Amino acid sequence: MNAEPATPLLDTVTTPDDLRQLKADQLQQLAAELRAETISTVGETGGHLGSGLGVVELTVAIHYVFNTPEDRLIWDVGHQAYPHKILTGRRERMRTLRQGGGLSGFTKRSESEYDPFGTAHSSTSISAALGFAMANKIKGVPGRGIAVIGDGAMSAGMAYEAMNNAEAAGNRLIVILNDNDMSIAPPVGGLSSYLARLVSSGKFLGLRELARRFARKLPRQLQVAARKTDEFARGMAMGGTLFEELGFYYVGPLDGHDLDTLVPVLENVRDAAEGPILIHVVTQKGKGYEFAEKAADKYHGVQKFNVVTGEQTKAPAGPPSYTGVFAKALIAEAEHDDTICAITAAMPSGTGLDKFASAFPDRSFDVGIAEQHAVTFAAGLAAQGMRPFCAIYSTFLQRAFDQVVHDVAIQNLPVRFAIDRAGLVGADGATHAGSFDVTYLATLPNMVVMAAADEAELVHMTHTAALHDSGPIAFRYPRGNGTGVALPETPQRLEIGKGRIVRGSDKSAGKVALLSIGTRLGESLKAADELEAKGLTTTVADLRFAKPLDTDLIRRLMLSHEVVVTIEEGSIGGLGAHVLTMASDEGLTDAGLKIRTMRLPDVFQDQDKPEKQYDEAGLNAPQIVDTVLSALRHNSTGVKEARA
Amino acid sequence: MNAEPATPLLDTVTTPDDLRQLKADQLQQLAAELRAETISTVGETGGHLGSGLGVVELTVAIHYVFNTPEDRLIWDVGHQAYPHKILTGRRERMRTLRQGGGLSGFTKRSESEYDPFGTAHSSTSISAALGFAMANKIKGVPGRGIAVIGDGAMSAGMAYEAMNNAEAAGNRLIVILNDNDMSIAPPVGGLSSYLARLVSSGKFLGLRELARRFARKLPRQLQVAARKTDEFARGMAMGGTLFEELGFYYVGPLDGHDLDTLVPVLENVRDAAEGPILIHVVTQKGKGYEFAEKAADKYHGVQKFNVVTGEQTKAPAGPPSYTGVFAKALIAEAEHDDTICAITAAMPSGTGLDKFASAFPDRSFDVGIAEQHAVTFAAGLAAQGMRPFCAIYSTFLQRAFDQVVHDVAIQNLPVRFAIDRAGLVGADGATHAGSFDVTYLATLPNMVVMAAADEAELVHMTHTAALHDSGPIAFRYPRGNGTGVALPETPQRLEIGKGRIVRGSDKSAGKVALLSIGTRLGESLKAADELEAKGLTTTVADLRFAKPLDTDLIRRLMLSHEVVVTIEEGSIGGLGAHVLTMASDEGLTDAGLKIRTMRLPDVFQDQDKPEKQYDEAGLNAPQIVDTVLSALRHNSTGVKEARA
Repeated sequence: MNAEPATPLLDTVTTPDDLRQLKADQLQQLAAELRAETISTVGETGGHLGSGLGVVELTVAIHYVFNTPEDRLIWDVGHQAYPHKILTGRRERMRTLRQGGGLSGFTKRSESEYDPFGTAHSSTSISAALGFAMANKIKGVPGRGIAVIGDGAMSAGMAYEAMNNAEAAGNRLIVILNDNDMSIAPPVGGLSSYLARLVSSGKFLGLRELARRFARKLPRQLQVAARKTDEFARGMAMGGTLFEELGFYYVGPLDGHDLDTLVPVLENVRDAAEGPILIHVVTQKGKGYEFAEKAADKYHGVQKFNVVTGEQTKAPAGPPSYTGVFAKALIAEAEHDDTICAITAAMPSGTGLDKFASAFPDRSFDVGIAEQHAVTFAAGLAAQGMRPFCAIYSTFLQRAFDQVVHDVAIQNLPVRFAIDRAGLVGADGATHAGSFDVTYLATLPNMVVMAAADEAELVHMTHTAALHDSGPIAFRYPRGNGTGVALPETPQRLEIGKGRIVRGSDKSAGKVALLSIGTRLGESLKAADELEAKGLTTTVADLRFAKPLDTDLIRRLMLSHEVVVTIEEGSIGGLGAHVLTMASDEGLTDAGLKIRTMRLPDVFQDQDKPEKQYDEAGLNAPQIVDTVLSALRHNSTGVKEARA
Repeated sequence: MNAEPATPLLDTVTTPDDLRQLKADQLQQLAAELRAETISTVGETGGHLGSGLGVVELTVAIHYVFNTPEDRLIWDVGHQAYPHKILTGRRERMRTLRQGGGLSGFTKRSESEYDPFGTAHSSTSISAALGFAMANKIKGVPGRGIAVIGDGAMSAGMAYEAMNNAEAAGNRLIVILNDNDMSIAPPVGGLSSYLARLVSSGKFLGLRELARRFARKLPRQLQVAARKTDEFARGMAMGGTLFEELGFYYVGPLDGHDLDTLVPVLENVRDAAEGPILIHVVTQKGKGYEFAEKAADKYHGVQKFNVVTGEQTKAPAGPPSYTGVFAKALIAEAEHDDTICAITAAMPSGTGLDKFASAFPDRSFDVGIAEQHAVTFAAGLAAQGMRPFCAIYSTFLQRAFDQVVHDVAIQNLPVRFAIDRAGLVGADGATHAGSFDVTYLATLPNMVVMAAADEAELVHMTHTAALHDSGPIAFRYPRGNGTGVALPETPQRLEIGKGRIVRGSDKSAGKVALLSIGTRLGESLKAADELEAKGLTTTVADLRFAKPLDTDLIRRLMLSHEVVVTIEEGSIGGLGAHVLTMASDEGLTDAGLKIRTMRLPDVFQDQDKPEKQYDEAGLNAPQIVDTVLSALRHNSTGVKEARA
């Protein structure tokens, strides 16, 4: 337990209205207290630390200058919004952060009127802010859209699409580019180099220069006339031409920790007639907490930690993570196959590709937050004879769905999709859950879809994917640690579309068949124990493939068992739907088939401990047992009679 | 039948190898013949005309200078690639264009080694070209990636994502920006204005200037040193800073119809040491065909036409198009509701929103080829109290899947999705088919998914969506003309999740129940006629909603009919899967249920006449009848015995 910091001024501020009563010269103290409170809070809960510390002054300045919540403030990604939460009526609940029933680790509409738009996936803020701005413009009511977006998030196409459409909003749209030269990993690409040049080429914009520039804005006619000739000159001095060419009025770069600059600049921007406006603010991730300043990556997302020593609570030791197992397996493949290469989209450590990149720097690509490009780039690599692995979280692969359809599946190109964070993800909640991938991939012709039941299976599937040259193949695996099974010395090439019997037999009749795919195998086996204890012979199959299905195995099990239950950690439309479709195609339900499909519920589940989430989803052993018993009990006489 | 043009020089050119044997001074004649041949061909087949005519000289120049197919040439979208097809061994087959078994209207890997990457959806070419370039770089073999991309396609985020990642490819990547100030509709946004300024601000780059610039590139060390100071100066002169800031070497603007400029510039670029390179070429859509030059929009996609008079064959008169009915219905809603607004992504005429924009310019948004932004922008509008209709083709909505999940469904915001071109689309083929929307939308919590059985239903669904404020709602409808039913004078608000009985009764027992959704209703009714003629009482329901299902109706029909068949124009995982899941959840299959699901087959269907495509898909009346009869005949004794 860390000591709580003294926060006399912050204690008087419950909402931005209170904040706006303060004098400008009190803001520095408020920021200091807000920073201390943020550190203290995250020390207790864990969560995102560095990003929030980087925007403490910016948070104070924005709420001080703008009329939130009427002015709609949208924090891109939202993991930097903890100080914002503290200032907007949620201080008391901060210690419930990322816990079941507690505050979200991102912004969320249901939490506060100061969160006008939920965020979590990157690069949505400008589009959303533009929506707010234009709605108010149409209605003729006041209210701006203000997006605060990091330099990493700017690498995503949708941020560019939004900027390209911003002009109509005029100065109702304000984009604050929070440039800390760091998303989770250091950002990549041309834009990043460009921003670095902007920052390094000049000093921060001083107040005097600011005054001069804003003065120059009046009279307007004169300014407009001057603008054409002035444009490139300003570009040279300030370097903001890229944004100006897209129609923005560029201001910056500014020191994002200097409230004496931030407040007057924001006031000027607020009162300026023209727009849209992009304010380029330079901040330091982890600012004001020495441990976080020194190791920004280690303090991006943290466990609980000791504020004085910076020491983070260690996660309990356990089996290796799926991510780590995948990375190791892929490196092993690449060691004897020169054509294997790997692509990730700003998640090198999250996908384990940082290790791959160390081993094979020339065959590793981190394309930044750019999933669409990642997938089509991989398709191009595949078309030229490489064996690309696209390692992307399930939830982020949604960003590239069309590219998976149009560039990979239609062309039947052998891109390998390593889908990390499939299924429920715990503290990150609904926005990061990987619920839909089996449904949206297995509906595509040509696609092969596997799910790993444990980390040994993941090794086999990585190997299988490496050797699968006849078309696209995807394999999903969950967040977190493996089950602790022994890892194979030699990976096995799985036969495409073949499952395996894990318990019991498909040769002899039994009462119950559990058809599991992916990580629910363990709970299925537990359920089988309980069912056997009740005298119900139970066969457990790990289908491995959601597509193509092992129709032989499924048919045999359906013909030899009284109750058949599918279990998967995915939404409706996935394995269960494919098994049901196959069964009805073949007329297996004609003579009666007690079949049930267990899947994720039709709700977006909030964050909680994983085991609680599984319980809420109804995918643990007791619920499997209940489903089986209930099916066995189900009296179909009524159905028969109705139909007779 | 148009007279065939005389093409003596073109007749000697079957492949680019032949072309490269010509002298440079013969290229102008070749281009003229190629243009005449293109006009003649499209006059007979219909298809895309203006775009191809705009790039005749560019096509000749690229194949002349570069070593295709080793140098990988990718035409973005691909509808401008008809001249390319003629030059790459496909001239004889051009008159089969867009027909069943014929050439695709886009580029396609299976057609030719000169089509290294299939295109059709916009803005994929730079990513793919980068994939080719990097694969060759890794392998240490020759071969560039060359992307030809229009200015409209540049508005899409993925083009920007690709440019942001281009630097590593060096001069193995060449992007040719084909600037004709026109995608299908005039392009929108900041980038478009920027390009217009580039073009209008200066004259085309002359050969002398070019020579000077390329000379300056050597010696390289000197050039690198000079670059930093030189950069902005060049930016001012040439205006290419936006691309240069992203790491490109910018050349242009060039007259894209002047072979005397194009060839030496491309040769210089080919031999230059640095890169990646962006060549800005200005072309005129429809160039060289007076009717197409005068009305670029009308000659973008054409019916067969008379080459001499320019007169296009009129499509046979028929019922109003679904697109037109939707537009009219939405305008009617907006007339008495100020909050209704409409968003499209570069498809104003294709979605009918051009008419809406004329009526309500302030509430209409064409965001360019930017589906991701379109959806999140709509979510922002909805969050601020507007009633946005996002009108996007089914196949293009795939581009915004994550935004539908993350920004709309998770937040339960009432964005209305008007999904045009759902299902099979005829001549445009697999890349444009809208096969997956029901599957990828109905799997999402909070989402309502409707499909219109005819144009009257579309009016009701537009009205229902307008009034649905409690969350997102989508309605799909096909390409082409309606069925000819009378349009309602007053639209009806449909009850969410309620279907309708169209024939027969759910109150009395029958032999067969056909559960249709969307446009297969007509075939279902035809099938019912045939079945009744065979003495089989048949009930036909139009479920209207794939989500939420009308479980009461479905249950009643399942309990009172011997065979239940679902019919939909969508892939696996859609309506059929949801009905099966509901049936198994409720134990309706326990006592035997002859249920079958008819859906699109598990293949990407090539272009053909729509009726043939439906036949191939197995979704016409005779196949519905066969499915029912086969189910009735299916002897489940074997199943019963196996299970006993």
